[in-house]
Amino acid sequence: MKNIVSPTQIIYEDVCRANIDRMLQKARHSGAVLRPHFKTHQSVEVGRWFREAGIDRIAVSSVSMAQQFAADGWMDIMIAFPVNFFEMDAINQLASRLKLGLLAASTGVISLLKKQLKHPVDLYIKVDVGTHRTGFDPYDTTLLDQELEQIPNTSRLRLKGLVAHAGHTYQAASHEEIHSIYRGGVQILTNIRERYNDRFPELVISWGDTPSCSVVEDLSQVDELRPGNFVYYDLMQWQLNACRLSNIGMVVAAPLVALHPGRNEAVVYAGAVHLSKEQLITRQGEKWYGIMVLLDDSGRWRLPEQQVWVHRLSQEHGILKVPPALFSQLQIGQMTGIIPVHSCLAADLLPKRLIV
Amino acid sequence: MKNIVSPTQIIYEDVCRANIDRMLQKARHSGAVLRPHFKTHQSVEVGRWFREAGIDRIAVSSVSMAQQFAADGWMDIMIAFPVNFFEMDAINQLASRLKLGLLAASTGVISLLKKQLKHPVDLYIKVDVGTHRTGFDPYDTTLLDQELEQIPNTSRLRLKGLVAHAGHTYQAASHEEIHSIYRGGVQILTNIRERYNDRFPELVISWGDTPSCSVVEDLSQVDELRPGNFVYYDLMQWQLNACRLSNIGMVVAAPLVALHPGRNEAVVYAGAVHLSKEQLITRQGEKWYGIMVLLDDSGRWRLPEQQVWVHRLSQEHGILKVPPALFSQLQIGQMTGIIPVHSCLAADLLPKRLIV
Repeated sequence: MKNIVSPTQIIYEDVCRANIDRMLQKARHSGAVLRPHFKTHQSVEVGRWFREAGIDRIAVSSVSMAQQFAADGWMDIMIAFPVNFFEMDAINQLASRLKLGLLAASTGVISLLKKQLKHPVDLYIKVDVGTHRTGFDPYDTTLLDQELEQIPNTSRLRLKGLVAHAGHTYQAASHEEIHSIYRGGVQILTNIRERYNDRFPELVISWGDTPSCSVVEDLSQVDELRPGNFVYYDLMQWQLNACRLSNIGMVVAAPLVALHPGRNEAVVYAGAVHLSKEQLITRQGEKWYGIMVLLDDSGRWRLPEQQVWVHRLSQEHGILKVPPALFSQLQIGQMTGIIPVHSCLAADLLPKRLIV
Repeated sequence: MKNIVSPTQIIYEDVCRANIDRMLQKARHSGAVLRPHFKTHQSVEVGRWFREAGIDRIAVSSVSMAQQFAADGWMDIMIAFPVNFFEMDAINQLASRLKLGLLAASTGVISLLKKQLKHPVDLYIKVDVGTHRTGFDPYDTTLLDQELEQIPNTSRLRLKGLVAHAGHTYQAASHEEIHSIYRGGVQILTNIRERYNDRFPELVISWGDTPSCSVVEDLSQVDELRPGNFVYYDLMQWQLNACRLSNIGMVVAAPLVALHPGRNEAVVYAGAVHLSKEQLITRQGEKWYGIMVLLDDSGRWRLPEQQVWVHRLSQEHGILKVPPALFSQLQIGQMTGIIPVHSCLAADLLPKRLIV
């Protein structure tokens, strides 16, 4: 803690390793393989905790992340993002030396890959199971039929599986709704697998999103799990009841820089460029950009007796609403902690990390 | 353009230099000094365009930015953010070699500075002119009176002026409202200056925020202008009518990676970690995270015939709503541009820059 002077990720190794182990056990009990998404932490060191737990394959969301983790020895990497054809040189370079997975998320991708790929890759079809971000429409398979006809009988493009990310679990109102999204999504993927079973008999089903992977106990209907956020969790997952407070693996250290007794507000050095502007709306209609925690000298955190939340952000400022009883105990020059709304975005923004 | 393969700032030097010149002329006509805020661009090269225009003093919003620009030879830097006492070593080091300005934004700061400062600095009092982010309450001067009594008659702490940032101009509904915020804010600062005139007879009034500095023609009531965003402007400023489209100095290059004809949506590689989750709500109630522009080979942009906006963001994905007529002209592997909602946040997120 002594070396922290500005917004920094404090990462709790014991909590993260326990989160990794718990998800890995669930995957094993479900007969599924865990391919954790490394976009959350983007850290070589945290990645090694996964490796030590027995993980040998990962997902990332950019070519540059694939290069980063390839450089640390990861040899089975899925780029779980639509192919960016501007980066084909780097993609070919990766494909030449490791087991690379690519996504076809809309039509036209396979014909471009056929022309531009120089080494074998595993191809996955992205299916839209209801998030409507990207992926093929499972209810009108015309485009998907056409796209799959493009797959040649050559060795460079191996159709390996179906990929889905049920991001709409993040808006779920209850665990029952998360279960329902999972059941519906898996049914969609199973139907698609069935549809193409004659030509592609061994497609795997790869399923993402931390809420469903955390909440659903039996995930045996899928072959591969791709959650990422679960290594840190965050306020959004806590609001979804997808984790406990004790599972929070990262908080943001935030120097307290101003106190305004007239309106019981404190200002911390942790703004939009540290926490991101990801917000959550509470049941009371309040907008939260994070909640404040108290840090001890070793960097461990605890909740104050009353909730203190970040209710406004500008580029470098976070504005906290503080109940009067706590306000009088705060002082300028104190280090506070913020549990971010979305740990993936905060981690991306904060290159400084302290592992405790 | 040929070297761009992933989300990148495209910076238009001619537009930025014209924006700088225009603001500098306005400051000169108003008899005010321009101290541009460099938190927007955070670029040494863009900073040099200011220097070439005749600027010799700047504002920044962190100690690390002050170090960055000090290393490029800037010798008069205001850290326009409450003092972060965890960084006193670096602050003292800066104060030992250049003209450093610091802010007292709430009580207790001056007594801490008296103990910890080792070299002279210019001290500014931050006054809350209605944004309620930070700064002293101008309507109840009890705390400010007490704080200013702490200022010793020594050379290390020189009370130099009053600083305000009228961030609430960003929520203004009209130019008249921006004018009104400016007039009210200046009156507040003038009253405060008057109040302490006997003891501190030559306080300067330093005024920030791009909307008022862009919209108000005669800024002669203030001594110093501290806008930052105006070098790039962005969608938010355009919505406020604080700039024209032709004044936009930066767009984000965004590879098009998926097309979904069923819902006329395109997916670009430009998500929350590139554009930030800053949003604006249009008069029609639509949520915008940016608008799409078409890029030519040299990197110049133009608006398509119909508006195309980013209506959803996830970590790396931006989802565009595209009218049918334009949709049929788009293709995967095309480079599009996005005018960000808030250029300061996008610029902070995008280390890759192309200057054209």
